[in-house]
Amino acid sequence: MLQNNQMNRQIVLAERPQGAPTSQNFKMESLPIPSPKEGELLLRTVFLSLDPYMRGRMNDAKSYADPVALGEVMVGGTVCRVVNSNCSGFNQGDWVLAYGGWQDYSISDGTGLVKLDPSIMPPSYALGVMGMPGLTAYMGLLDIGNPQPGETVVVAAATGAVGSLVGQIAKLKGCNVVGIAGGSEKCQYAEDELGFDRCIDHKTDDLFVQLANACPEGIDVYFENVGGQVFDSVLPLLNSCARIPLCGLISQYNATELPQGPDRMPLLMGSLLVKRIKMQGFIVFDDYAHRYEEFSQAMTSWLKDGKLKYREDIAQGLENAPEAFMGLLQGNNFGKLIVRVGEDELN
Amino acid sequence: MLQNNQMNRQIVLAERPQGAPTSQNFKMESLPIPSPKEGELLLRTVFLSLDPYMRGRMNDAKSYADPVALGEVMVGGTVCRVVNSNCSGFNQGDWVLAYGGWQDYSISDGTGLVKLDPSIMPPSYALGVMGMPGLTAYMGLLDIGNPQPGETVVVAAATGAVGSLVGQIAKLKGCNVVGIAGGSEKCQYAEDELGFDRCIDHKTDDLFVQLANACPEGIDVYFENVGGQVFDSVLPLLNSCARIPLCGLISQYNATELPQGPDRMPLLMGSLLVKRIKMQGFIVFDDYAHRYEEFSQAMTSWLKDGKLKYREDIAQGLENAPEAFMGLLQGNNFGKLIVRVGEDELN
Repeated sequence: MLQNNQMNRQIVLAERPQGAPTSQNFKMESLPIPSPKEGELLLRTVFLSLDPYMRGRMNDAKSYADPVALGEVMVGGTVCRVVNSNCSGFNQGDWVLAYGGWQDYSISDGTGLVKLDPSIMPPSYALGVMGMPGLTAYMGLLDIGNPQPGETVVVAAATGAVGSLVGQIAKLKGCNVVGIAGGSEKCQYAEDELGFDRCIDHKTDDLFVQLANACPEGIDVYFENVGGQVFDSVLPLLNSCARIPLCGLISQYNATELPQGPDRMPLLMGSLLVKRIKMQGFIVFDDYAHRYEEFSQAMTSWLKDGKLKYREDIAQGLENAPEAFMGLLQGNNFGKLIVRVGEDELN
Repeated sequence: MLQNNQMNRQIVLAERPQGAPTSQNFKMESLPIPSPKEGELLLRTVFLSLDPYMRGRMNDAKSYADPVALGEVMVGGTVCRVVNSNCSGFNQGDWVLAYGGWQDYSISDGTGLVKLDPSIMPPSYALGVMGMPGLTAYMGLLDIGNPQPGETVVVAAATGAVGSLVGQIAKLKGCNVVGIAGGSEKCQYAEDELGFDRCIDHKTDDLFVQLANACPEGIDVYFENVGGQVFDSVLPLLNSCARIPLCGLISQYNATELPQGPDRMPLLMGSLLVKRIKMQGFIVFDDYAHRYEEFSQAMTSWLKDGKLKYREDIAQGLENAPEAFMGLLQGNNFGKLIVRVGEDELN
């Protein structure tokens, strides 16, 4: 159900998940629509971005950002329209990129808002190809990965918001690109539409063998966003001086304890040492916000020239955000997952 | 017993070690002193360098360098004098840095030889502070670690060839430096002579607590050359954006299997991700040979000005090289370990 303009529906964190989130972890509440004070504006959410990092915010653990408190609105990037503005520089009807969270309406004092021009690009792109996932792909690949023409780049979640861009940018840089994705439909899309040289279904029984066959000269850049069994298959194939931008580890976000077995931490460190590999974690806005302009110009130009394809997977209605988010963590989405919370037009 | 000039004694790899090397893994052989052909020269070893990387060469595993074959002379850096030269540019009596291995004499065609001037510095320094260990410390710390004034740098094997230089260079760069070493004598030396702010004995029962107390603002650069329990104590103390030059893992070189227990590979990757840490393996001559001049100038200047201290631990006689090397892997050396193989003077 899209917003009815009478109340502000919010999805709050009801309890912290143990393992995979369930619908019990979320609760929808309805409150009066807030009124902007002097210097503030009222935003109506049109699109809400759903991203894997939100799983970390549901934990009560120290991380690079504070957790969402129990009873608080789930955080998230939003594309909004300005309903009322008491803030200079913004007018009713403006499209803005905000961080309004999982709710119909939000109040802002203008800090961090970015105005969007819908005549240039669909505003929802600010949540994906032109926003955080796009900057993540661009900077992680180019700055940390530093791929050279002819090198082999591997990326998992190959049709996801970040992975699809990583692979396409790597192709633009002249690399051999091998994707890993869940299911034949996604793999077909990565090869036929995104132009990857190969895409391997991680649901296969012999991922390592298929990956080794797809990378006969080894792997020079592995853009890491999943971890787990995919990384297990990648590690032995890494070349000397390989680079691993460490962007996410979605396969382990729901884990409640470490797997049992031999402790492979020494194995990993030994591999990094002997092969002179760089593995580097990054948080895109902390590390690369200052290079947004460079990214934006490159991305806009590639999109305009038809060199980049971008696919959205749009869930309908704020009330469906929890289910869509739970699916994201299972790899059910096909493209950048967003939620349409409200209509485009102000009534 | 120093060389007798009658025969060429060689220490060869007799069998590959299972775990820690034993004296059975080595065998001394005596052969006639070889004669240099046209374009070659005969070198007499004065000093042999013993370094942890040699343990890897004793394995039959693919690594960044080929293993030593069974029955072949153990490899190693040497400081030599030229006995006979049929090679232009070298004269009898010249001091040279070579890679002659564990033997009294070696033949070279001049490739890779570096002439040494004993009037500037003791020639043995070419095996340590002015050579591979020095370049390792300098480049690993400065290029990968990139320490900033006021940051906290931690280094283990703090009185060893590499660690002692890492800590001193970090002090010259204005950092807080905490060393980790084995035994109170070494710790005292690191603090009193090398100028470290603190040095902690890793033989203590509460390494983590002591390290945490010594690093109240966390760790920004951890120069890794040991791994194992030291790294276990370091990992939780790493700050956001910490850098880990991965130079060695001496604690695990003798391991024959992975430790049992929870698999902490996901834990390590999760920490690198959340804290945006860079961990990077490097092999100094492959990665940094082209920057030797820069290093050499800086190091020479610091030594001349008395800003760097350098300690050698000299074993006497080629026949004692195996025992000295086994001790190196146990941390028994105190300073850069070298073997005096022959007299300084040509007879």
